[in-house]
Amino acid sequence: VEIVLGPHEYGKAETRLVRVDRDGDRHELHDLTVSVALRGDLAAAHLTGDNSAILPTDSQKNTIYAFAGRYGVGRMEPFGLRLARHFVDSQPTISAARVHLVEHPWTRLGPHSFAGAGQENRTAVVTYDGVRATVVAGLTGLVLLNSTDSEFTGFIEDPYTTLAPTTDRILATAVTARWRLGEVPDWSDADWADSYQGVRAALVDGFVQTYSLSLQQTLYAMGERVLSRHPEVVELRLSLPNRHHLPVDLTPFGDDNRGEVFVATDRPYGLIEGTVARPEAAEPGLAWW
Amino acid sequence: VEIVLGPHEYGKAETRLVRVDRDGDRHELHDLTVSVALRGDLAAAHLTGDNSAILPTDSQKNTIYAFAGRYGVGRMEPFGLRLARHFVDSQPTISAARVHLVEHPWTRLGPHSFAGAGQENRTAVVTYDGVRATVVAGLTGLVLLNSTDSEFTGFIEDPYTTLAPTTDRILATAVTARWRLGEVPDWSDADWADSYQGVRAALVDGFVQTYSLSLQQTLYAMGERVLSRHPEVVELRLSLPNRHHLPVDLTPFGDDNRGEVFVATDRPYGLIEGTVARPEAAEPGLAWW
Amino acid sequence: VEIVLGPHEYGKAETRLVRVDRDGDRHELHDLTVSVALRGDLAAAHLTGDNSAILPTDSQKNTIYAFAGRYGVGRMEPFGLRLARHFVDSQPTISAARVHLVEHPWTRLGPHSFAGAGQENRTAVVTYDGVRATVVAGLTGLVLLNSTDSEFTGFIEDPYTTLAPTTDRILATAVTARWRLGEVPDWSDADWADSYQGVRAALVDGFVQTYSLSLQQTLYAMGERVLSRHPEVVELRLSLPNRHHLPVDLTPFGDDNRGEVFVATDRPYGLIEGTVARPEAAEPGLAWW
Amino acid sequence: VEIVLGPHEYGKAETRLVRVDRDGDRHELHDLTVSVALRGDLAAAHLTGDNSAILPTDSQKNTIYAFAGRYGVGRMEPFGLRLARHFVDSQPTISAARVHLVEHPWTRLGPHSFAGAGQENRTAVVTYDGVRATVVAGLTGLVLLNSTDSEFTGFIEDPYTTLAPTTDRILATAVTARWRLGEVPDWSDADWADSYQGVRAALVDGFVQTYSLSLQQTLYAMGERVLSRHPEVVELRLSLPNRHHLPVDLTPFGDDNRGEVFVATDRPYGLIEGTVARPEAAEPGLAWW
Repeated sequence: VEIVLGPHEYGKAETRLVRVDRDGDRHELHDLTVSVALRGDLAAAHLTGDNSAILPTDSQKNTIYAFAGRYGVGRMEPFGLRLARHFVDSQPTISAARVHLVEHPWTRLGPHSFAGAGQENRTAVVTYDGVRATVVAGLTGLVLLNSTDSEFTGFIEDPYTTLAPTTDRILATAVTARWRLGEVPDWSDADWADSYQGVRAALVDGFVQTYSLSLQQTLYAMGERVLSRHPEVVELRLSLPNRHHLPVDLTPFGDDNRGEVFVATDRPYGLIEGTVARPEAAEPGLAWW
Repeated sequence: VEIVLGPHEYGKAETRLVRVDRDGDRHELHDLTVSVALRGDLAAAHLTGDNSAILPTDSQKNTIYAFAGRYGVGRMEPFGLRLARHFVDSQPTISAARVHLVEHPWTRLGPHSFAGAGQENRTAVVTYDGVRATVVAGLTGLVLLNSTDSEFTGFIEDPYTTLAPTTDRILATAVTARWRLGEVPDWSDADWADSYQGVRAALVDGFVQTYSLSLQQTLYAMGERVLSRHPEVVELRLSLPNRHHLPVDLTPFGDDNRGEVFVATDRPYGLIEGTVARPEAAEPGLAWW
Repeated sequence: VEIVLGPHEYGKAETRLVRVDRDGDRHELHDLTVSVALRGDLAAAHLTGDNSAILPTDSQKNTIYAFAGRYGVGRMEPFGLRLARHFVDSQPTISAARVHLVEHPWTRLGPHSFAGAGQENRTAVVTYDGVRATVVAGLTGLVLLNSTDSEFTGFIEDPYTTLAPTTDRILATAVTARWRLGEVPDWSDADWADSYQGVRAALVDGFVQTYSLSLQQTLYAMGERVLSRHPEVVELRLSLPNRHHLPVDLTPFGDDNRGEVFVATDRPYGLIEGTVARPEAAEPGLAWW
Repeated sequence: VEIVLGPHEYGKAETRLVRVDRDGDRHELHDLTVSVALRGDLAAAHLTGDNSAILPTDSQKNTIYAFAGRYGVGRMEPFGLRLARHFVDSQPTISAARVHLVEHPWTRLGPHSFAGAGQENRTAVVTYDGVRATVVAGLTGLVLLNSTDSEFTGFIEDPYTTLAPTTDRILATAVTARWRLGEVPDWSDADWADSYQGVRAALVDGFVQTYSLSLQQTLYAMGERVLSRHPEVVELRLSLPNRHHLPVDLTPFGDDNRGEVFVATDRPYGLIEGTVARPEAAEPGLAWW
């Protein structure tokens, strides 16, 4: 039987890094989970167990900590790019690297005191192939809810349709968004923060300010605002689970439910996924690896 | 073989309730997970399958939704008390009820728009036995971190001790706190909110403002502030996992680690639990059920 | 304000231990998660930050590993007892110890190869107060389902009851069971394994062989079998979530549902908890700590 | 700003379906989680909120239950194909459908009694685009461990490498495998079961019988066995997290650790991913959607 080794990669996943920047008594906190994936000349490892092309995943982890100490962390994207470039540039056997970063947010309570700021995380994926670098910024766990101004009518009614059209429902979702930058900007930390906060605000505005006829429409409205406001973004991918809130029938108990009492369900859920992009956006290369 | 039926209870757990208060275009949102447990004359159900004393858990769930519609939710504690009293007072076979409530926080984005506010939840446990009601307020998931002003020295060094004393470490925890009210107050919703926010602030202040010699010391400092500031609280129980942040040894890479680079570990973790109370506090009755 | 320090304890939680017994090429695997809690003369640590009575949780973790190497693991209960006795007997400041153990099961694939055997875990809690030791054995995650021979009728119908009585339903649960041994037996590893397997089989038999009129009745039937067959057990506590399987109404699609198509729901769920015991059982002491 | 709607899809995710086949007192149980995704002429929904091309996700859920009642479930793959074909063939606006199925295993305890069989799940993804159907079978959560016969040596040692080479370590992983069938076979339920069990056995054999020089080598050995034994499989993708078991240093306690005592760590972990395929395999079409 003839067999070929197809696409393959490896790396250290979910390295937990906390970096404290100490400027006297005033501290800054960076709390990241970093995952590395490498591609390259790895066939011998698979076929014969020859590891001479393998940089151990343990060394990758060490590099994350060493770079965090030596260069600091700052914004995730430049930190990830430094790592990706290092693995490719320092190892002849490694042809491409992806660094996936998640930033866990904290809010300041004092000069060196912080409170965890919840389940909404900022994300970044940077890639480098020896020539070109790409950056995809993002966020997960942004939970949004409109308690009115949401309809769902005019849909197909097939023999399996029992859903009643509604002109007033709760619309809720937990946003996962990833946006590709057209090229890697030469930004300060403040620029990176501004761009992120701006995109996040555009997503929130798109959700809040849209009178929704469907979650699909809301998705597009969110994406449209991001691309309109942020020229640095050339493509945006959104994954929006529809967190259903079903009105409870109170008539058995002699009451009406005027859009006031809902069951928040876990499963199943609708899942709406879509992309908005500039027509002239350059090829993504490894951006979506 | 002689066998006796010992303590037993039953109820509906984790009913998900979202209540929207609509005052024109301005909406309020209450997002709760409610669990009920009932005790009473339930031996026949266990011994012979005679269900004539059993109020179905499905009916308990219905009652939660019906009451949310009819009376509104407001603060969790009075809502829970109404439910607990109802089950005991309406059912001759039910002698005691516990209602456990978790409130999932949202922040306002607009008149009818909200964002999920994270993993920190407010909790309440109310009980009623036909005569006396009790209230235990609480919170979970309050994550706190001091990046300095924490020591750990002077501990026992036995043959299995390898830990080095340290005069500068990260101290981090995820607070679970439950505090018992001396009696059930006749409060407005605003009073309930004020008490809760005050206790939460005392916990945060105790953590942030204490130069810590151990997490035990910090625990007591947190509790001391709550009891000092809040006469309505007679007992406070704290469960504080020590979220270890271990400094990374950077010397193999030619660098020093001056308290800047840490591994945040998942397991194992220290777990510190303790109670502070007023010496004259009345017996808890069913409060800690 | 006068404040007292109430009950308090501390210890290392969730130490992950894998022990391989090597007898030539034939290996045995023990995969445990071990949590320690200690009580004693700990007031100074809380009140003044004086740690001279504190055995670090890190040392507790080291002790677990050291004992696993020196003495082996074997059955969990004697291993836990050895640890509990050690902490109390070696430390004047420690008056009582609890060791909570979870065993993660593996099945053998070869002399030194194993497959993870699922989410059902064996548990044990052992305590020691310097004089008396107690053992509570247990299991979690034993998922059981009967697809018929389950009724639920004759219950209270109050104004909030909409549930229809049924004479044929799915009954499913995920068993958490803990059983107290009357005294600590001087058993071989094989005896421990036999007792555990026997209790587990009694629980399964009680569930499978009972024509159920309610989950309460099934709970008692399960407990009755354990106590009847196992004289070493003096008390059994069961926690049985009712994993509801709701029949789907197929009539909108022109079909009947003759007990064939169900929705398995996550939340809410009924939760039935109860105890069966021998009337002459000795006082539990610290057993249920 | 010119913006285009890029790739998009929607559907109902995680519908929980339990189907009981009743043949007298002898019951069969099928426990599935089914997720549907649809593509087609959905631009109007996004751009203008015109839902006339949208089959509600609620109707998709209903179809799953209706088909389970009318046709039974049997093997997942034909059930999923029936659903995928239905959505595309019955809806002019839907051009392609993907049905993702997870089967939760149960073991038989009696004629109508079952025990949950753990966290290892069988998976299937079927797609249909109006012309061609594809099937990708799979599994998740197959946890495997070799307690010896695993080395890791000869790797790159860069300035960040501190890992020592080892000729005896624990190798453990949790297999996620997905294998593409060359064409959709016209199989009986027994054939589907045989193919699945055969592939699973080949994966296990590849892991158990390989003296491992790296997890990459083991990955290839596993894949090689599948393709060698199963001509119906044309491509196999494996994702193998390296569940590290680190030997504990017992020398501070005066003991040696001869490969007997290990810490099982959660994070970080190595992640090895790779593909093996037949060189002549046809284009996958939508198989990996």
